[in-house]
Amino acid sequence: MNNTQLQKVLDNMHEMGLKQLLITSPMSIKYITGRLIGPGERLLALLVTDEGECTLVANSLFAVGMLEGARLVEYDDTDDTAKLLSSLLRGGVLGVDKELKSRFLLPLMDLRGDIRPVLGSLCVDRARMIKTGEELALMAESSRLNDLALSATIADLREGLSEEDVAAAYRRQAQSLGSPGESFPSLICRGPNCAEPHHDTSKDILQNGDSVILDVGLMHGGYCSDMTRTVFLGKPTDEMRKVYELVRAANEAGRAAVRPGAALSDVDRAARSVIESAGYGRYFIHRTGHNIGLEVHEYPDVSKSSEEVCQAGMVFSIEPGIYLPGRFGVRIEDLVAVTPEGGTTLNHLSRELTAL
Amino acid sequence: MNNTQLQKVLDNMHEMGLKQLLITSPMSIKYITGRLIGPGERLLALLVTDEGECTLVANSLFAVGMLEGARLVEYDDTDDTAKLLSSLLRGGVLGVDKELKSRFLLPLMDLRGDIRPVLGSLCVDRARMIKTGEELALMAESSRLNDLALSATIADLREGLSEEDVAAAYRRQAQSLGSPGESFPSLICRGPNCAEPHHDTSKDILQNGDSVILDVGLMHGGYCSDMTRTVFLGKPTDEMRKVYELVRAANEAGRAAVRPGAALSDVDRAARSVIESAGYGRYFIHRTGHNIGLEVHEYPDVSKSSEEVCQAGMVFSIEPGIYLPGRFGVRIEDLVAVTPEGGTTLNHLSRELTAL
Repeated sequence: MNNTQLQKVLDNMHEMGLKQLLITSPMSIKYITGRLIGPGERLLALLVTDEGECTLVANSLFAVGMLEGARLVEYDDTDDTAKLLSSLLRGGVLGVDKELKSRFLLPLMDLRGDIRPVLGSLCVDRARMIKTGEELALMAESSRLNDLALSATIADLREGLSEEDVAAAYRRQAQSLGSPGESFPSLICRGPNCAEPHHDTSKDILQNGDSVILDVGLMHGGYCSDMTRTVFLGKPTDEMRKVYELVRAANEAGRAAVRPGAALSDVDRAARSVIESAGYGRYFIHRTGHNIGLEVHEYPDVSKSSEEVCQAGMVFSIEPGIYLPGRFGVRIEDLVAVTPEGGTTLNHLSRELTAL
Repeated sequence: MNNTQLQKVLDNMHEMGLKQLLITSPMSIKYITGRLIGPGERLLALLVTDEGECTLVANSLFAVGMLEGARLVEYDDTDDTAKLLSSLLRGGVLGVDKELKSRFLLPLMDLRGDIRPVLGSLCVDRARMIKTGEELALMAESSRLNDLALSATIADLREGLSEEDVAAAYRRQAQSLGSPGESFPSLICRGPNCAEPHHDTSKDILQNGDSVILDVGLMHGGYCSDMTRTVFLGKPTDEMRKVYELVRAANEAGRAAVRPGAALSDVDRAARSVIESAGYGRYFIHRTGHNIGLEVHEYPDVSKSSEEVCQAGMVFSIEPGIYLPGRFGVRIEDLVAVTPEGGTTLNHLSRELTAL
């Protein structure tokens, strides 16, 4: 058990008035217990009481063994997990995390009409949101390695490669730097594909005149990095230059707005207004960013609707983009850590317009 | 929209008396709409009414475009998805699938006290359970390719390779056969690692005297294969031979028990009793198998607690194993399709004891 992280969760439970919290996100369970277990469709749950008692419910196949500071309740493939969970819970309000699936929640509610489930995810999401010094060091190193891997990938970029070839090249670079793998499937887009922000990396071939978006991240010490650069093959058009510089300015404005106490919605605004003022607002079709840590997308968003403010220890992306359907797209993304004084950007790879 | 699949879901809704069903499993949505969208943490939901009206709720980033036969409701990153869902639902009972997360369900219940959510997952799970002729053909081909890829991997197996090396060799074989990738991360275990059925493939080195479990599958046409073979490096001991032949007999007995109308719990029993009669029952620590299709683990299990009976069109694994802690383990897994006459095994790779 990681007692520092557990205490943060307990503090949040007290603040929310929750006496019991059921956590099923494998990454949240890893955050508290130090153990990463991939349960597939089977139940894996950590029950935390406001007194700090922890019970891990796990299939015996997961072979958890000893877990200091927590009680282990094992079941096997023929056991009724709803009955098992039910036997562990008190009546009244039960906080559950956002990942709990209906397959587990609804049978539990059928058995225990005296339990009222409420979304208690923030107890663990807001704990994970503020990184410790140790976590920040791992995230800084993860981004440093990501800079190196992407820099080497861009150096080898050329016409005739497919998007998948580029993704494979990035993977090799990440592996050669000792990373166990990507933090998400690399998103490599050429030409008009760049205008679909969630285009899947394909066999399409890079051509002269293309914008090329490279959205990549790797794992280091359990922590994710995530960065995007856009480069051009051949001489970019005037409009490409203009759009590129706008996105670069929006990225800078977003990063410059980061300081403790600043609302995340204002950080979003700082980046977005640069693009809106130039008349491209309707081509920036997503949130400005997202927090990141053990997982690549964590709570909260950096968006108009976010209610959180910057606090030292947060790490999030600033990733404005302009997407011109059927033509080209530009996104520039960096990770920023909030410090007591302001914000520090974890990525150092150049943002100068690059034409290959 | 795939109207054959939709009709199966509607038939199940009528049978269960459900007027509205909310589906959030991306694979179930693909099953009905033909579109595979990976929503990450964002909401993706297909609402189906008993009259066959379909509404797909998707972030505009997913760029769904036209979807014939369904209404498309798009939202963006700043919209309140609970309010949006709420506006689409009638009062009364709402069937939801097992994958619906609390992050979406609980805010919806807060807004709509007049809605009673029930687990309606079987409407789609039982539709997916019975494959069409077209699906069966894809699954047979997926398993044929898996036979070839694993056969080639075993041919190159030798002392000194790591478990990860073997997994990489299988991946290359699958790719060279035109597969877009594995259907799950290959599980390669050597020696005592074999006795942990959910051991992760590691850097451990294969040694003389080892049992080696290879649990692998690939994708073909959107459908999964899944097979396990166990081989020995060097001359197996008498106990290894005995355990191997027991598991092989259990695998055969399980497959032989498959015919329309046979309870899946009896299929489990047929395999398990072979191992139990020989005194190894407590070392067979998991269900006998699981259904498979678009995903590697589908509803239902082949286990003592399964309530389904074999029906023509089902495809499931038969994968008995014996795991002797700290020493070695054996698992032999094949996919079986239920036919009108009995069962047909989709894997044809030899199950003879193999010593390399």
